[in-house]
Amino acid sequence: MEQHINFITLGVADLAASRRFYRDVFGWRETADSNANIAFFRTGNALLFALFGKDALVQDAQATASGSGFPRFTLAHNVGSEAEVDALFAGFAGKNVQIVKAPQKVFWGGYSGYLAAPDGFLWEIAYNPFLRQLR
Amino acid sequence: MEQHINFITLGVADLAASRRFYRDVFGWRETADSNANIAFFRTGNALLFALFGKDALVQDAQATASGSGFPRFTLAHNVGSEAEVDALFAGFAGKNVQIVKAPQKVFWGGYSGYLAAPDGFLWEIAYNPFLRQLR
Repeated sequence: MEQHINFITLGVADLAASRRFYRDVFGWRETADSNANIAFFRTGNALLFALFGKDALVQDAQATASGSGFPRFTLAHNVGSEAEVDALFAGFAGKNVQIVKAPQKVFWGGYSGYLAAPDGFLWEIAYNPFLRQLR
Repeated sequence: MEQHINFITLGVADLAASRRFYRDVFGWRETADSNANIAFFRTGNALLFALFGKDALVQDAQATASGSGFPRFTLAHNVGSEAEVDALFAGFAGKNVQIVKAPQKVFWGGYSGYLAAPDGFLWEIAYNPFLRQLR
């Protein structure tokens, strides 16, 4: 698995309030791909920082928000095809890894799965056919 | 404030277990600057991913770990001097931002402060004179 992180996505309670914060306090500008449900900020060449509704993020990861179980953010490692996602999960299978969501097609047109690292930190392994457009 | 994130630091319960996970499951290699207390991984040109003891991270941010208050990770925005850290915090002062830790010298030789974004997500604004060496 190559050593890169493509997305940090925060699960926020009030998306409008968070957008204002990053715009007014940090002075950051969203990418053109942002929409009513998600805000993207390009930070550096390859890293996207995203704001997403907390409940929507929980749902995307098929995680649970109860107790201290959900860390309220996710890290994403993107690869170039659905087959590469499957290959990585096949490799995890022999390593006693907790799979939170098996790789599957997702509504936004991609393909992804989630696993839990120690302490419940969530990693998404994803193929996103639109990723090059997120500028 | 420029649009970049330099560090993602996870506060972990068992540093040894997390190191094993990222080494054995992800196949990632730590940088030479890692030590007994902290593990660094270079992910892309400018982004460092770090593992740090949960309590140590709480202490560094001068945050509280009680309840759901501490998000168990921090994001860092690095600048080129102590004066630049101070200038950013001066700018935050007029914007109704919750300062978690005022800028100050820290034991590892740098200078940093923390603020809380909506939902309590913690941002460190830091000057790290050793950053170029973290390879």
